[in-house]
Amino acid sequence: MAFELREGIAVLERTPATFRALLGGLPAAWITCDEGPDTFSPFDNLGHLIHGERTDWIPRARIILAQGVTRRFEPYDRFAQSRESAGKTLAELLDEFTALRAANLDTLRSWNLAEAQFSLEGEHPALGTVTLRQLLATWVAHDLGHIAQTTRVMAKRYRDTVGPWREYLPIVNR
Amino acid sequence: MAFELREGIAVLERTPATFRALLGGLPAAWITCDEGPDTFSPFDNLGHLIHGERTDWIPRARIILAQGVTRRFEPYDRFAQSRESAGKTLAELLDEFTALRAANLDTLRSWNLAEAQFSLEGEHPALGTVTLRQLLATWVAHDLGHIAQTTRVMAKRYRDTVGPWREYLPIVNR
Repeated sequence: MAFELREGIAVLERTPATFRALLGGLPAAWITCDEGPDTFSPFDNLGHLIHGERTDWIPRARIILAQGVTRRFEPYDRFAQSRESAGKTLAELLDEFTALRAANLDTLRSWNLAEAQFSLEGEHPALGTVTLRQLLATWVAHDLGHIAQTTRVMAKRYRDTVGPWREYLPIVNR
Repeated sequence: MAFELREGIAVLERTPATFRALLGGLPAAWITCDEGPDTFSPFDNLGHLIHGERTDWIPRARIILAQGVTRRFEPYDRFAQSRESAGKTLAELLDEFTALRAANLDTLRSWNLAEAQFSLEGEHPALGTVTLRQLLATWVAHDLGHIAQTTRVMAKRYRDTVGPWREYLPIVNR
């Protein structure tokens, strides 16, 4: 599957509205539920995406595009949102994510990337050499993964309540 | 986890807007991708939810609430949407799902269910005796499962494009 920037952006620009439609105004029990210690609630998923907007995708793309002497990315803190989201409401996180994502996509579009630039390389601290194309495709798949994770965490609240239907609902059994 | 109707409805009423935010206006490649023969594309997921609005949740709840001599549900056709969605656009399916879901939730609310009614029973053709509570909880979890399935199918388009990040993205490996 080749990567087409236009297609990737089409998903990226929809994710904030998807989270807003899915979570905005829900009773708190749906927002704070999780799968046990060190797992993400829907609230945590949103905070994690916000942290990625600040520190991951665009900053790493900048490192790749600069092609400086060192092209090594900063390690990514998967649990940063527990600090950064503290005291915030879901509505605040939805607004923050919406604004950050829009600004980051403006930046991405402003680069007017040429085909050859998608093959430029950076250095992931654990995975080694990666390309800009791989980074941008991962941004998209990562969004989709966190929508899926959010709905899975929610569905599991009803794992027992669904009774014998559990057999037909793989999502509550993962 | 007890079932609170208000909480369940809060999810059910958001699902059409979630699909609209996620899929509305996307390039066709995202709408028609699937995981192979006899698997659901995002378009199929939406058609499947529409079929459920027509034939599954509310009709089965009616059978339970009527408590007639026979309380056996009609079997559910998991692939009905391949006929019923034929020739329709995604925008048409989004509108159809939105209208059907709103009407079905109006019906559900109009019943003003008393606590004891949630324990009334019906007969699932394969699973045997089930309660109204289990049926309604399953409606909610089923929605969430199909949001997750839709995003998983989409994420898998980039299974190879993400390169070494595949290791960090369980969604593309399922």
